[in-house]
Amino acid sequence: MTDPAPTGVRHRITAAYDGSAYAGWQVQPEHRTVQSEIEAALGTLAGRAVKIHGSGRTDQGVHARGQVAHFDLPRAIPPANLKRALNGLLPADIRILAAARARPDFHARRSARGKEYRYFIWNGEILPPWLRAYRAHMRKPLDVPAMRAAAGHLVGRHDFAAFTANPNREVESTVRSLTELRVSRRGAEVVVVAKSDGFLYKMVRSLCGLLIRVGEGAVTPDEVPGILVSRVRTARVPTAPPQGLFLWHVTY
Amino acid sequence: MTDPAPTGVRHRITAAYDGSAYAGWQVQPEHRTVQSEIEAALGTLAGRAVKIHGSGRTDQGVHARGQVAHFDLPRAIPPANLKRALNGLLPADIRILAAARARPDFHARRSARGKEYRYFIWNGEILPPWLRAYRAHMRKPLDVPAMRAAAGHLVGRHDFAAFTANPNREVESTVRSLTELRVSRRGAEVVVVAKSDGFLYKMVRSLCGLLIRVGEGAVTPDEVPGILVSRVRTARVPTAPPQGLFLWHVTY
Repeated sequence: MTDPAPTGVRHRITAAYDGSAYAGWQVQPEHRTVQSEIEAALGTLAGRAVKIHGSGRTDQGVHARGQVAHFDLPRAIPPANLKRALNGLLPADIRILAAARARPDFHARRSARGKEYRYFIWNGEILPPWLRAYRAHMRKPLDVPAMRAAAGHLVGRHDFAAFTANPNREVESTVRSLTELRVSRRGAEVVVVAKSDGFLYKMVRSLCGLLIRVGEGAVTPDEVPGILVSRVRTARVPTAPPQGLFLWHVTY
Repeated sequence: MTDPAPTGVRHRITAAYDGSAYAGWQVQPEHRTVQSEIEAALGTLAGRAVKIHGSGRTDQGVHARGQVAHFDLPRAIPPANLKRALNGLLPADIRILAAARARPDFHARRSARGKEYRYFIWNGEILPPWLRAYRAHMRKPLDVPAMRAAAGHLVGRHDFAAFTANPNREVESTVRSLTELRVSRRGAEVVVVAKSDGFLYKMVRSLCGLLIRVGEGAVTPDEVPGILVSRVRTARVPTAPPQGLFLWHVTY
C-alpha cells in the first residue's frame, strides 16, 4: 500500500469541548458548531475540505469529555503531529485529546459499541459562578434514594419512545439497552451516569428530566414503569437543561 | 437606636465571582468591574447611589470564592432578603453567598485579620476546556517537592518588596506575615494555598510566579532566600497568570 486509497487515509480523534458557544456538534449553515470548527482546522492542515463523522450529535450547550470522530486525509499524518497541529489551530474551548490512524472500515458512529453520558446537577441554593455553564441548577433538595429507585425501573432493554423527542418509529427502532443509570451525591453535586449501547435523540436529558422530577417529589418511583411502557412522550418527562450534560466516553 | 445613623445602616456581604468578564474588582470609568455591578444592584434596591468597600482589589481575570464588602444602606434590609434580591439583580457570574448586618465600625478592609488565596495550576498537556478560565496552564511537569522547599523559605514575617509590583515603600510597609504557603498536587492539578495577615499588590501571583519557576527547574529552592532578602523585584519573579487565582477567604 504505497498509494492512499481514493478516499484517503482514515484517522480518528477524541475531542473534549465546552459546548457553551456552539450550536451543538453538527454542521449547520450560519451557525458555529464544533464539527465545523474541527473541519475548518483539518481543511487548513490538509489543504482541502475534510468532512468528519462524529459518534453522534450533541445539542447546543452540551459538552463532551470524549467525543470521537473519524475522517479521511489525503495522506497519513503522524498522530502526535495531527493532535498538536489541531490544538494549535482550534479555539481553546475545543481540545483534541487523542489522535490515531484508524482502519479503513472504522466508523465513529456505526462502530461504536456503547456510550456513556454524565449529567451534573448543582443541588444547592447558589450555583458557584465558575460552574454556571457546566451544571444544571436545582435549588430544591433532591431525594437521591428516590431517584435511584426510579433509575432501577429504567435500566435494561426497553422501548424508550417515551424518552425521546420526535421519535420516528417507522424508520428507526426506539428499543435500546440502558446498561447503567446511576445516581450519586457528593455534597451539593448530584451526578447521573448513563450507559447504553446507543441513545435516542434527547434520551439522556429526558431520563434526567424524569429523574429530577422524581427527586423533587413530583413523580414517584412507582409511576416510572407506567411512563416507560406507555411509549408516549408527555409533559411528565421534561428535557433537562443542556449545560449539565457531558458526552463522557464512547466505547468501540 | 430607632433612627439610622446619618451614614445609614452598615451591612456586609460575601461574594463569589468569575472574574473573566470584568476589569477586576475596583470601579474604573468605562470598564465593567465587579464592584460597579454590585453597586448598581444595591443602587436599584436602595433607591440611591451606594458605595461599597471590598476587603481588597482583585485584578482583571482573578476570581473570588469569598470576597467580603461592606456598605451603608438608608434602612436595614433583612439579610436573607438582601441576599435574594441582589442575586436576582446581579449577573450569574457574581453571586452573593451571604449577607448580614454589621456593626457601624466594621470595615471590610481595615477589620480583616487575614486572607487566604488559592492558586490553581493545570499541569498537564491539555487543559480541559471547561477549566480554561480558572486554571493557569503549565505543560511541563512541575517538581512539587522543589516548590515546597522554596515555599518553606518564604513563609514567615518578611519584607516582601521583591514580590510586589510598584512598591511604594515611603508610603507603606512591605513587611507581611506569610503564615502559610502550601503546595499540593492531585493528578494534573497543582494548588498553592497562601495565607497572610495581608498581601501586597500582586504578591500572590508573584509568589506563585517564582514557585512555578522553581517547579520548572529554572530557579533552585536555595536561590529563594537571596531573592527574598534582595527586596528588589526582578525578572526572576514573574507574575503568574490571573485566571488561576481565587480570593478564597477573608478572616475577621
